[in-house]
Amino acid sequence: MQNDWLESRVQVSPTQTALLMGDRQWRYAELNRLVSGCCARLAALGVQPGDFVGVLLPNSSLYVCLIHALARLGAVLVPLNTRLTLAEWQWQVAYVDCRMVLCEPEAAAAGQDVRLVPVDETWLDAESAVWESQQFGLNRVQAVVFTSGTSGRPKGAMLTFSNHFYSALASAYRVGVLPDDLWLSCLPLYHVGGLAVIWRSCLYGTAVDLHPKFDLMAVNDSLNHKPISLISLVPTMLARLLESRQTWPETLRLALIGGAAAAPDLLARALAAGLPVATTYGLTEAASQVATMRPEDVRRKPGSVGRSLLFTTVRIVAADGRDLPPDEIGEIVVSGPTVMAGYVGEDALTDHTFHTGDMGYVDADGDLWVVQRRSDLIVTGGENVYPAEVEAVLKSHTAVEAACVVGLPDVEWGQVVAAAVVVKEGTAVTAAELTQLCRQRLAGYKLPRQIYFVPDLPLTASGKIARQELAQNLAIARLASGVEPTVSQPEPLS
Amino acid sequence: MQNDWLESRVQVSPTQTALLMGDRQWRYAELNRLVSGCCARLAALGVQPGDFVGVLLPNSSLYVCLIHALARLGAVLVPLNTRLTLAEWQWQVAYVDCRMVLCEPEAAAAGQDVRLVPVDETWLDAESAVWESQQFGLNRVQAVVFTSGTSGRPKGAMLTFSNHFYSALASAYRVGVLPDDLWLSCLPLYHVGGLAVIWRSCLYGTAVDLHPKFDLMAVNDSLNHKPISLISLVPTMLARLLESRQTWPETLRLALIGGAAAAPDLLARALAAGLPVATTYGLTEAASQVATMRPEDVRRKPGSVGRSLLFTTVRIVAADGRDLPPDEIGEIVVSGPTVMAGYVGEDALTDHTFHTGDMGYVDADGDLWVVQRRSDLIVTGGENVYPAEVEAVLKSHTAVEAACVVGLPDVEWGQVVAAAVVVKEGTAVTAAELTQLCRQRLAGYKLPRQIYFVPDLPLTASGKIARQELAQNLAIARLASGVEPTVSQPEPLS
Repeated sequence: MQNDWLESRVQVSPTQTALLMGDRQWRYAELNRLVSGCCARLAALGVQPGDFVGVLLPNSSLYVCLIHALARLGAVLVPLNTRLTLAEWQWQVAYVDCRMVLCEPEAAAAGQDVRLVPVDETWLDAESAVWESQQFGLNRVQAVVFTSGTSGRPKGAMLTFSNHFYSALASAYRVGVLPDDLWLSCLPLYHVGGLAVIWRSCLYGTAVDLHPKFDLMAVNDSLNHKPISLISLVPTMLARLLESRQTWPETLRLALIGGAAAAPDLLARALAAGLPVATTYGLTEAASQVATMRPEDVRRKPGSVGRSLLFTTVRIVAADGRDLPPDEIGEIVVSGPTVMAGYVGEDALTDHTFHTGDMGYVDADGDLWVVQRRSDLIVTGGENVYPAEVEAVLKSHTAVEAACVVGLPDVEWGQVVAAAVVVKEGTAVTAAELTQLCRQRLAGYKLPRQIYFVPDLPLTASGKIARQELAQNLAIARLASGVEPTVSQPEPLS
Repeated sequence: MQNDWLESRVQVSPTQTALLMGDRQWRYAELNRLVSGCCARLAALGVQPGDFVGVLLPNSSLYVCLIHALARLGAVLVPLNTRLTLAEWQWQVAYVDCRMVLCEPEAAAAGQDVRLVPVDETWLDAESAVWESQQFGLNRVQAVVFTSGTSGRPKGAMLTFSNHFYSALASAYRVGVLPDDLWLSCLPLYHVGGLAVIWRSCLYGTAVDLHPKFDLMAVNDSLNHKPISLISLVPTMLARLLESRQTWPETLRLALIGGAAAAPDLLARALAAGLPVATTYGLTEAASQVATMRPEDVRRKPGSVGRSLLFTTVRIVAADGRDLPPDEIGEIVVSGPTVMAGYVGEDALTDHTFHTGDMGYVDADGDLWVVQRRSDLIVTGGENVYPAEVEAVLKSHTAVEAACVVGLPDVEWGQVVAAAVVVKEGTAVTAAELTQLCRQRLAGYKLPRQIYFVPDLPLTASGKIARQELAQNLAIARLASGVEPTVSQPEPLS
C-alpha cells in the first residue's frame, strides 16, 4: 500500500519539471493541480472507484493528467488504440464493461452502446489544490491494456501498480537514472511502452518530453533544442532518425529500442553513428521491459536483448515443459513482479509467470535472443498484428475459400502484412474488394499490403497451414514480381 | 516477499564488479560464491534462521560476505562498534541475546558470557556454488543497529529488508544511479551509513570501493586511480580531504555529506573547490537518508538538508503535538517505509513514524533545516555521544557530586565532548583520575576532551540542568584559557 505516486512526488519535488510538450512545460506541483481538477470533472461525471474508463485520445498533456486522475480516483484506465476502427474499440469497451469512454469531441457522436464523453483542453482550466486520493494498493489494477489474441480476439492485460513500481525500479537500475533526466517519448500512451514512461518518470521525479506521435521533424527539433537524455524508439523510427541526422546531442545517454526485433545491421549503424542504443524485449503483459541490453554490450553482441531486469526471471521451455539448456530454442517464459495479474475474463496468474508464446534462447553468457515473436505474430512499425484477426475478415467474404496472413521481412517496417487467398470455385474477387472489406473492419496498420491469390495453401503433416513455408513462398514471389504493395504503409504508431 | 537480493543480482549481472578493496576486486558471481561458502561455515557453527549474530570486525570483504550470508541464512546481523569497550559491547550482545559474536582471532579470548567465534580471511577460501536462501520477507529484520539512548543505555534499532529496499530506491531517485557507479565507502559497516551502501549497491548492481577506515592517503589514492563516482563522508572527513587536494576527478558526481551537520562555510569551500556536495540528514532508525539536498541546491542554500526522500514525510511538531507552520522550530518527526520496525525490547512502531528528538524547521520552500540533534546529543567526528552515558560514569566516582557533559563547537570535529564536574564537599579528585575512570568504561571517542571543575551547575526554571547555558559558559571558559584539551581526539570513525 502506498500513497498516490504523483502526490508523493509533489511532496518532495514540487518545482522539478514533470512534462514538456512543444514549448510548454509543467512542474510537478502544477501537474498535480491539473490532475486534481480532472478528478473533480471525472467525479462529477460519476466515475467511482473500481470503474473501468476508456480513453480514446492521442498523446497530450490532458491524457497524462487523465492517467494520474483515474489512478487517484481508484478507477481503472482502459487506453484504447486510436488506430482501431469503431467496431474494434467498441468491442473492447463492451468486453471490460467501461462506464464511459473519454474521447475527442469529434468522436463523441460515434457511440451507440457506450457513453462517450468529449474531453478537451478546457479540462485543464479547472485547477484544484487538493483531491483526496485513493491509496495505491500495490495489487490494485491500474490499467487494462489490450493486445490482440491468437484467436483473433483481443485480450485485456491487467497491469497493477506493483507491476509499474517494480518495472520502474528495475529499469532504473539497468539503464540508470539521473535527477535531471528528460525522456523523449513519441510512443502512444495506449501502448505499454508509452504508458510505462509516465509512471517511471513520476516515480523518479524526472521529466518527459511527450510527442503527439513520431514526427521526424518534431523529434529532431526536441533533440536539437532540449536536453534529452533518453528516448524510446521502435526500429522503424530508429532507421528514419539515423537517415535524418549525422550527430547526436551530448546529453543523450541512451536510446531504448523495443517494440520489435532490431536488425543487427541497424544497431551497428546506430552505434557507428555515435548513438548509444540499448535493445530491449518488452511485453504488454510484463508492464514493458523484460530484458534490456546496455549499449556497450549491444556493440559486442548486436541482436541480443541481454539479461532480464532485476527480480525478473526468463526461462526457455520446450514443448513438453522441460527447461532447455543454453543455446537451445524454446518458448520464452517470464516470471517476476512485473508480470500482469492476468487477462480480463481469464484465470488470474497467481504465480507471476507468463508463457509468452515467443520463441528464443539464452546463450552461454545468459543473454536472451528472441528468435521469433509469438509464432504467428506480425510486428509492423512497432504495432502488433495477429493474423487470425485479419484472416477472419478475409474469410467473411463470400468468394474466399481460405486465407492465410503472414509477415514478410521489410527493411523499414521490420515486417509487412501479406495475405494469401484461395478463391472459392465458381466465384471471383479482386484484391481491391478485399482491401476495401478489411479497411471497413480493421485498423489501417492491420491491412494486408499485398494480397496474393493462390490455388491452395501449403499444409503441415498434421494438416495445419504451414505458415512458415507460405511466408517463404510469398517472399520469393514478391522478389520475383518486383510489384509495389497494393496498399501503402501508414505512419508507425502515429 | 522477495528472493535473496544478492542471488537476484547475480542472475542478472554476474560479471559486473561488486566490490573493490585496495587492488583486489570481486564480481557479483564471485562474491555470491564466497557468500555461500560463509553460509556453510555459519551453518556448521549452528547459526539458525532467526538467530541474532554479533559481528565485531573492521570493514573488510569478509564483513561484506557475512552481511549477505546472515541474510541468506535468515539470521539477524548485530553489527558491533569496534571502538566500544568490552563491557559496552558485551552489554549489547547480552541485551539482544546473540547466539555468537564473530570477531578477529585476537579478540576471541575476551568473551566470558558469550560465545566468541574467530573469523579470518580463510573463511573466503571455501567457495560454494549454491546455498539455498531464505526468502527476504520484506518485514523480516535484517539487522539490529545500536544507537546510544538518552537514558545512557544503548538502543537496538531493528531494520527490515523493506527499510533498506525503500531507502535504496528513494536514494537512487534523489541522487541518481548509473550502471557503472563506484561508491567509495570509508564509513564503518557497523554504522547505518556504511551498511546502507552495501545493500543499495547490491540492489543497483553497482560497485563499492570499501576502505577499512578513513585514511586520507588511501582515500586520495582511490580518488586518483579508480573511477569513483560517489563518496560518503562526515564533515570532519570532508574538511581533511579539502585540505589535502585541489582538484577532483571528473568521474566524481556526488559527495554525500552526513553523520552530522556540515557548516555552511565548509560546504561553500567544497563547492568552490569544484566538489559537488549533497547534504543529508540521516538516522539509524530510518535506514540512513531521510532528506538529501542536491549540490545545485546546496550552493543556493548551504546548511539545509533539502526535502525528504520519496515516500518519506517530515513533520515539525510542537511540544504539545501540534504540527508547526513553515519556519517554526520544533521536533522533527519522520514517517515512511524506511522507518525501523522499532527498538529491541520496546513497542513496535506500527505506523512507520519515528519521533527523532532532533529539532529543526521546514522553510517556505519545504526544505528541512536541522537546528540541533536530539537536544543533548553530541556528534563528534561522525560518532554520536549521549551525555547521560558519560555522566553516569563520572558520577560513579565517590568524589563527584554532579556532572554534566556537553558538546562544544569545534572546527574540525564539529563538536568535542566536555564535562563540568561538581566535587563533593570534603573530597578531592583530579581530571586525570576521572579520565582514567572513563577510559576503563567508555569507547575512546566518548571521553571528555576537557574536564572543568565548577562550584555548581546552572539550573532552568523547572530545576533541570541548563545544558545550553552551561555549554556557553564552558565555550567561553575555553576561549579565555586557551588551554589544550586534556585528552587528544581520536581519528574519526576509524
